[in-house]
Amino acid sequence: MIVAMQESASEEQIQQVIEHLVRMGFSVHRTTGERQSVLAAVGARIDFDTRNLEVLSGVEHVHRISAPYKLAGRSFRPGGTVIEFANGLRVGGNEVVVMAGPCSVESREQLFTIAELIVKAGARVLRGGAFKPRSSPYSFQGMGLEGLKLLREAGDHFKLLVISEVMEISQISLMLPYVDIFQVGARNMQNFNLLRELGKEKKPVLLKRGIAATIEELLLSAEYIMAGGNYEVILCERGIRTFETSTRNTLDISAIPVVHKLSHLPMASDPSHGTGLRDKVPPMARASVAAGADVLLMEVHHDPDKAFSDGAQSLYPEQFSKLMDELRMIAPAVGRTIA
Amino acid sequence: MIVAMQESASEEQIQQVIEHLVRMGFSVHRTTGERQSVLAAVGARIDFDTRNLEVLSGVEHVHRISAPYKLAGRSFRPGGTVIEFANGLRVGGNEVVVMAGPCSVESREQLFTIAELIVKAGARVLRGGAFKPRSSPYSFQGMGLEGLKLLREAGDHFKLLVISEVMEISQISLMLPYVDIFQVGARNMQNFNLLRELGKEKKPVLLKRGIAATIEELLLSAEYIMAGGNYEVILCERGIRTFETSTRNTLDISAIPVVHKLSHLPMASDPSHGTGLRDKVPPMARASVAAGADVLLMEVHHDPDKAFSDGAQSLYPEQFSKLMDELRMIAPAVGRTIA
Amino acid sequence: MIVAMQESASEEQIQQVIEHLVRMGFSVHRTTGERQSVLAAVGARIDFDTRNLEVLSGVEHVHRISAPYKLAGRSFRPGGTVIEFANGLRVGGNEVVVMAGPCSVESREQLFTIAELIVKAGARVLRGGAFKPRSSPYSFQGMGLEGLKLLREAGDHFKLLVISEVMEISQISLMLPYVDIFQVGARNMQNFNLLRELGKEKKPVLLKRGIAATIEELLLSAEYIMAGGNYEVILCERGIRTFETSTRNTLDISAIPVVHKLSHLPMASDPSHGTGLRDKVPPMARASVAAGADVLLMEVHHDPDKAFSDGAQSLYPEQFSKLMDELRMIAPAVGRTIA
Amino acid sequence: MIVAMQESASEEQIQQVIEHLVRMGFSVHRTTGERQSVLAAVGARIDFDTRNLEVLSGVEHVHRISAPYKLAGRSFRPGGTVIEFANGLRVGGNEVVVMAGPCSVESREQLFTIAELIVKAGARVLRGGAFKPRSSPYSFQGMGLEGLKLLREAGDHFKLLVISEVMEISQISLMLPYVDIFQVGARNMQNFNLLRELGKEKKPVLLKRGIAATIEELLLSAEYIMAGGNYEVILCERGIRTFETSTRNTLDISAIPVVHKLSHLPMASDPSHGTGLRDKVPPMARASVAAGADVLLMEVHHDPDKAFSDGAQSLYPEQFSKLMDELRMIAPAVGRTIA
Repeated sequence: MIVAMQESASEEQIQQVIEHLVRMGFSVHRTTGERQSVLAAVGARIDFDTRNLEVLSGVEHVHRISAPYKLAGRSFRPGGTVIEFANGLRVGGNEVVVMAGPCSVESREQLFTIAELIVKAGARVLRGGAFKPRSSPYSFQGMGLEGLKLLREAGDHFKLLVISEVMEISQISLMLPYVDIFQVGARNMQNFNLLRELGKEKKPVLLKRGIAATIEELLLSAEYIMAGGNYEVILCERGIRTFETSTRNTLDISAIPVVHKLSHLPMASDPSHGTGLRDKVPPMARASVAAGADVLLMEVHHDPDKAFSDGAQSLYPEQFSKLMDELRMIAPAVGRTIA
Repeated sequence: MIVAMQESASEEQIQQVIEHLVRMGFSVHRTTGERQSVLAAVGARIDFDTRNLEVLSGVEHVHRISAPYKLAGRSFRPGGTVIEFANGLRVGGNEVVVMAGPCSVESREQLFTIAELIVKAGARVLRGGAFKPRSSPYSFQGMGLEGLKLLREAGDHFKLLVISEVMEISQISLMLPYVDIFQVGARNMQNFNLLRELGKEKKPVLLKRGIAATIEELLLSAEYIMAGGNYEVILCERGIRTFETSTRNTLDISAIPVVHKLSHLPMASDPSHGTGLRDKVPPMARASVAAGADVLLMEVHHDPDKAFSDGAQSLYPEQFSKLMDELRMIAPAVGRTIA
Repeated sequence: MIVAMQESASEEQIQQVIEHLVRMGFSVHRTTGERQSVLAAVGARIDFDTRNLEVLSGVEHVHRISAPYKLAGRSFRPGGTVIEFANGLRVGGNEVVVMAGPCSVESREQLFTIAELIVKAGARVLRGGAFKPRSSPYSFQGMGLEGLKLLREAGDHFKLLVISEVMEISQISLMLPYVDIFQVGARNMQNFNLLRELGKEKKPVLLKRGIAATIEELLLSAEYIMAGGNYEVILCERGIRTFETSTRNTLDISAIPVVHKLSHLPMASDPSHGTGLRDKVPPMARASVAAGADVLLMEVHHDPDKAFSDGAQSLYPEQFSKLMDELRMIAPAVGRTIA
Repeated sequence: MIVAMQESASEEQIQQVIEHLVRMGFSVHRTTGERQSVLAAVGARIDFDTRNLEVLSGVEHVHRISAPYKLAGRSFRPGGTVIEFANGLRVGGNEVVVMAGPCSVESREQLFTIAELIVKAGARVLRGGAFKPRSSPYSFQGMGLEGLKLLREAGDHFKLLVISEVMEISQISLMLPYVDIFQVGARNMQNFNLLRELGKEKKPVLLKRGIAATIEELLLSAEYIMAGGNYEVILCERGIRTFETSTRNTLDISAIPVVHKLSHLPMASDPSHGTGLRDKVPPMARASVAAGADVLLMEVHHDPDKAFSDGAQSLYPEQFSKLMDELRMIAPAVGRTIA
């Protein structure tokens, strides 16, 4: 940590700051410049709240030097993380992995229809929501356990892995027999109790960035899961909230190269939630692959106008397969392949 | 709902949109202008996803007319909601109610010391966190049940009501015997399962605005609680995330008059979390009262430098009592009093 | 315009709003629903300030139906605008046009060195700043007229068109003999006097989106130029300001498909300013082309460590030519070519 | 400046960064910690672009220690700046100075009517726009020179100082005989050529914060003016752009105490532009004074429904005088007075 003192700081104030740092377990190196004194504090407390120094008299600015995460940082695994599944699929490797399916599981027929069309187009993982707490209390709330069973059945039938969203600790054991990847939604990115429990499991977790979360906060949430021993975390950009309202959120494509520099974890992009509108999904899916995304997560529905939820952002089958063809043309430009 | 068609929309496209609306249960009135056709759709579905229309061919814009909430809206109770407690305290009435206390309950001695000083200065409700999931997995996580018991004991001793944060459904029954008001934190503002369960209780809920939540979304979350039968909801502004980094968040003071226009619910302000720095708390507390806040929620600590969490935003005892004196001067300007 | 009245609005209030609208030149159609009355106002005043209605008693919401621009809207030229230059180059056509060069013109040698390497790699337009007002009063401020002459000379020598930024009305006539395209920077997007003057010229204008400007505001600024008779406007995304600080700005790639839907004007992307860091430029340039950008604007420098300004976001020559090769692989996926 | 090297940085990379710093004129102090090396660079270049270091190999983060401004910083004049006018009015002193008037000067009658009512209510400065470039090319554009003359005449008649907005360098000499304070609007906050010219004048400048400008950038713009020798700068908060749309902008009240800590310059608040809606102006004006604002800038109109511009945010005369009474009750709570 670096503490820059004000030009007008007295020697007494500087000594008080040094004592405060030493008391917190830091060793302190002092540089006295022409205009001001600067203290470099080195120590083991990764979670120190820098504001405790900012409020001391005579302090101008405090800067954290080390990132507040360790396990999620690039230097922990400079070569990058590749998550390998039992069926041989590798996330974070050469192949850009496409995960697709409906927003919500609605029925056996719906799910099998969609699973068949996405597997034909080249998707490798089936997505679908079983629990759907909605922003309005008057909306459809999901099929629950029945939905999970259908996902597993469709996944096994079409040789697709299965991903579904977990929203509460109590759902973890319920979902364990049915899913291959736990998805943590944007609203739960800082549900630390949930993250801690997922850290104890042996299943990969796809962790979505909150709509107001910085990339540093996303990595810190990954750290929560990894601190429990589960290192198989996939990060996912799905749009941040900005002043622009012509899209539901602003899909921050630049988060893809930023994460690849800061972390070793695979990075996904979800253009369906990131834009909220079907006709914006293909350009943003192409952009994500061109920017280096390891995974694409997309909503597809055979009859989106009748979808129980988020139909407006679900691709039509023909849009999805046309998009997959375009992605196959783009992937080689970044040294990747698509199934 | 209003659907504005593109100038170039064909009659066939317009008919398709009308049919879509009728199928969803709306009655449709059409206005044909010089440049474009406009459809006004009137109907009962409060939760309709307008994007389902935006993606139809020929549609230019879709505007929701009615607010997507009912119970939380001003017209439900034009005179405003006053929450009355057993000890006679009224929230939403003439008195600006001050809730204060430490960020975390740390010990019996700490809590009693702080409770004594805030009651002397004029606070009416004791706040304190018992469960503290932190953004770093390496930080202090709260005293739990023991903390709740201490809060109740201190509250009873000093004749203060007690408020504490509930973070999971499983904590509701645990907290019920000890708290007078449930606090829902910013990160849980859209934890709809939690909100639904709180709607079944008979205790007031203070609901904090998420850092990326619009005021409309805050009201929709209140609606979740109210839909279950619990109408005693206090809303709370605690800072939104913007591009400005000189404060931890940007406390959106204008949310106070906006909520008072749109809703009948009492509106609180939390300048401690809203600014994140002690020396910004008094000006923003004064500003909140001047703007019409019904409740102030603030962190106070007798020894903030040694606080287990958020010490940097906790007021010193003397700052708090000086601030209370200033607030007593301001309150009459808005026709209010402070204890 | 649609005016939704409050449920509690009196008949008198409704009549006052109707009278207000009629006085402003609108014809009004009234729909009386179960819960509320809705007024549809149709009329010619494109610039009406809807807030004048919002503040009337009994009004709940006011929605503008028509976009506040006409000439910039897609329906003005449904087939899209293609700008054709004397040398045959077409912007908005099949070819993705790459504009590249240094941030600032620094010397004849510097400019010719860079022009030669970008033309070899496939760029078609030479960019370079002659006037450089900087955010610090203590920084390099540009070569001025001398820089413009060098740009023209280098452009002619290497058969590149020339683009440079105009910052004030007084510079227009100065620049006219030397540039093929006027660039309006993000800070001047709402300098309406400057836009109006550019509307009188016969030279294309590349108009950059302000860092806090919505896409609607960008189109309204284009309308200013077009209202003067100059229809050759290229829009440009260059990053918006959000809460994320790991990139200088957040390049809003989704603005590309959004503009293509709302407007007929060609859309450019500037990943150099959009990210502010050299290693983020290639992924975001690729993403822009994959999302459908018509133009790429990028900073390239043969020795960026010694650049007078913005060296950190300038590509090395070998990065630029590698990137151009990647873009040539991506362009066909969106039915485009690159020189 | 502090440069934190990556854990994995090689000794060669560290040496290259040190050489780069030395070449730029810094002296460098190196601290080698357990995990990483940290370089503290001390030197005179206030405008160094830190991104030039961020892109070097092996660099993790770069932190600027000193603020990039000097003259605008609190340490330049720890006691604060008070601007004293010929008529004895002091801005930045004990009195909270109220500046009020119409958005645009529309006629002699309009201006005199409004000036009379504001002077009776306690305003000390008359505001009014003479040049009104509007966001739509189809709107009223101001009375120009004629408006300036009317302002001066009304100001002299009612013993009010006069403030009006300057939008271009060419207007400075035109305005000089008529105004007491130059106002620089939010859109021109980074029009550095204009700021530089104003720095050469001997008239106070009220500088508004841009809607996407950080407080640091606001201070840097003040530095531009001060660097020319004009130290009489008043800063002004007028709302920033955020995701919230229920107000036109989000008035960042916390900017008031933040500026008071970082700078010695007086700080104004403009609740009219900050909220954009008349009924939100009084609460936000009260909040501004309660938070410590030195100046309030507000729009008042005797017949706002017929105002040529911004009528929706103009106060009615009776609202204004009621508000002034409320402000007189609040000012003593912050040790201030109001005329």
